[in-house]
Amino acid sequence: MCAMRYAVILAGGGGHRLWPASRRSRPKQFLALGAAPDLSLLGATRGRLEGLCPAEHIVVVTAAEQAEMVRAELSGLAPENLLAEPAARNTAAALGLAATHLVRRHPEAVLAALPADHYIADEAGFRAVAARAFALAAARDVIVTIGVVPTRAEVGFGYLERGAALTDAEVPGAEVAYQVERFVEKPNAADAARYLASGRFFWNAGMFFVKARVLLDAIGAHLPETKAGLDAIGAALDANPGVSGLAAAEQVAAEVYPGLPAISIDHGVMERASGVVTIPGSFGWNDVGSWAALGDYRPADEHGNVTQGQVVCHDARDNIVVGDGEHAIAVIGAEGLVVVQAGNAVLVVPRERAQDVRAAVAMLRERGLSDYL
Amino acid sequence: MCAMRYAVILAGGGGHRLWPASRRSRPKQFLALGAAPDLSLLGATRGRLEGLCPAEHIVVVTAAEQAEMVRAELSGLAPENLLAEPAARNTAAALGLAATHLVRRHPEAVLAALPADHYIADEAGFRAVAARAFALAAARDVIVTIGVVPTRAEVGFGYLERGAALTDAEVPGAEVAYQVERFVEKPNAADAARYLASGRFFWNAGMFFVKARVLLDAIGAHLPETKAGLDAIGAALDANPGVSGLAAAEQVAAEVYPGLPAISIDHGVMERASGVVTIPGSFGWNDVGSWAALGDYRPADEHGNVTQGQVVCHDARDNIVVGDGEHAIAVIGAEGLVVVQAGNAVLVVPRERAQDVRAAVAMLRERGLSDYL
Repeated sequence: MCAMRYAVILAGGGGHRLWPASRRSRPKQFLALGAAPDLSLLGATRGRLEGLCPAEHIVVVTAAEQAEMVRAELSGLAPENLLAEPAARNTAAALGLAATHLVRRHPEAVLAALPADHYIADEAGFRAVAARAFALAAARDVIVTIGVVPTRAEVGFGYLERGAALTDAEVPGAEVAYQVERFVEKPNAADAARYLASGRFFWNAGMFFVKARVLLDAIGAHLPETKAGLDAIGAALDANPGVSGLAAAEQVAAEVYPGLPAISIDHGVMERASGVVTIPGSFGWNDVGSWAALGDYRPADEHGNVTQGQVVCHDARDNIVVGDGEHAIAVIGAEGLVVVQAGNAVLVVPRERAQDVRAAVAMLRERGLSDYL
Repeated sequence: MCAMRYAVILAGGGGHRLWPASRRSRPKQFLALGAAPDLSLLGATRGRLEGLCPAEHIVVVTAAEQAEMVRAELSGLAPENLLAEPAARNTAAALGLAATHLVRRHPEAVLAALPADHYIADEAGFRAVAARAFALAAARDVIVTIGVVPTRAEVGFGYLERGAALTDAEVPGAEVAYQVERFVEKPNAADAARYLASGRFFWNAGMFFVKARVLLDAIGAHLPETKAGLDAIGAALDANPGVSGLAAAEQVAAEVYPGLPAISIDHGVMERASGVVTIPGSFGWNDVGSWAALGDYRPADEHGNVTQGQVVCHDARDNIVVGDGEHAIAVIGAEGLVVVQAGNAVLVVPRERAQDVRAAVAMLRERGLSDYL
């Protein structure tokens, strides 16, 4: 069964929520924000797949300008397993591109779509859930999404509501799966609290498992324009054997890809498709959506301070202080702050407002200081 | 009268209260902490003497290891006007050394002893008070100290209490002068409030005016050991004419100076001398004793933020944010903080605890991170 398993790591993201460590030139997935101070989120994403699918079945989709960094970060990644997008066209196109390739490697290839920039505390727990999802997606022509069991009334995530439990309990993985009743956008606080209490809602962590063939069919049904572009790329692969096919596909992609609709797989396919199922999972998932997230999974000292780099705290409590290791940071008498220094920039913001780093980024851009972004 | 006026700028200080901008290699007096972002406190100290005493009568006493920096900072400073201390022996020795030289330039030389690392907002006001003090010190053989009229019940300064007004009103300067009744150490809050209310107490700003001859006599009376060392240096000057005398004096100083008692002019002489008088002054004096001081005299934006360098503040109030101009600093949603970045170090501390930067310095030293000091 492993022979059909593929992982597609989505590593094309940009974003500034982790500024000043994340920059245009070094997006979040390349930062060592996990448990190990020397392993990037991308590296950790690959690392936790060990034993779940063969190393040569791990494919990374990334932006063309990040391809070199991905190669440097993931040593041993075979050239054919790095798919560079000629333009950013969101996840529907990115996953469609991967599926177009993988269905030709194995007609029944099952792919796991995995964001490159999340943190997972319990890697064995993740693999156990993922193995069930792989099995279910292999056994049935459906999209199997992982529903992360919520631990708080979070308003920052999308949710999915489960429907009936699957009844074909003889199918591997189905014994723990549910129909997805609906996807819901980021809720308000009252709804989030209701979702949490109900036990019927899960966080949409953007991880799902589906046969490449089934995914392409779903794209064809809901995003025909995308499908046509992917078919052209696929035709180039089919017409040219081996490595020349990859080059031919790249050429076609350079032409058609920038014209594809920029839409997420969630909006473009998942929310419109029927028969999506979910397998709930609890494995310490964190989307590392802001600096405050480090407080959720990094160990704190006896005063509640989470630090990285050359940091001294004196009479300071519950701060998150991250330096680049070359600068010293001293925090005295402060409480509940995020202090981040990375290269030529410094951020200071209360923990509960860590999302507002966007405002800083916007102001720097307005003032012509884009060199710091 | 100007021909007898000399200024002695005391620029030998070290200290870490302005860390991370002040370092062992770049003490506070070399930092641009005044009104102009490109003028050091030392440069401003010299600058405000213009019109008060001749430029060639400005003498700087500094530590040997800072001599090169002083030269770079004060272009045009004549070699004979830079007196480098072979060792740090506090202000009694430093001013005695200057007086030993100056009494030989003019037997009735009147010197103004001026710290290099303070800020003065009203420079014309300062010059007016200083001119009176010069005149009084020229007319009478007393030490004339400037008593800064207190504007708050500050516990961080020493005070002096005035006695009777001088009665010889025909002497220039005497019409605004008082006997000094006593010097008092840093008071507690209750005493400070009482001092402020009484109208009889002034801040001791460490600025005083006295004939070199009178100062040397006072040192002889209260610090005979210091006087003996200074006499040896003076003898070398007397025995060798011109430039060779300076070299000979340096040689003698290298031998005797390190053995002089390390004591401040306040403790060693002023508090023991009789007939010390004071001229009250109000000219926006600030000792720049911590980063919080910048809030006293730097203009704030409409949200109360005082900034320097590449700084963006968003929804932030009453912060003091200082960068080195090469790093960007973003402060979001924070209130009442001091945030300073200088070179390879960052400090974050609430304004009201800005004095506690010493704790950071101590911790860095303990942890073997002295490179950041």
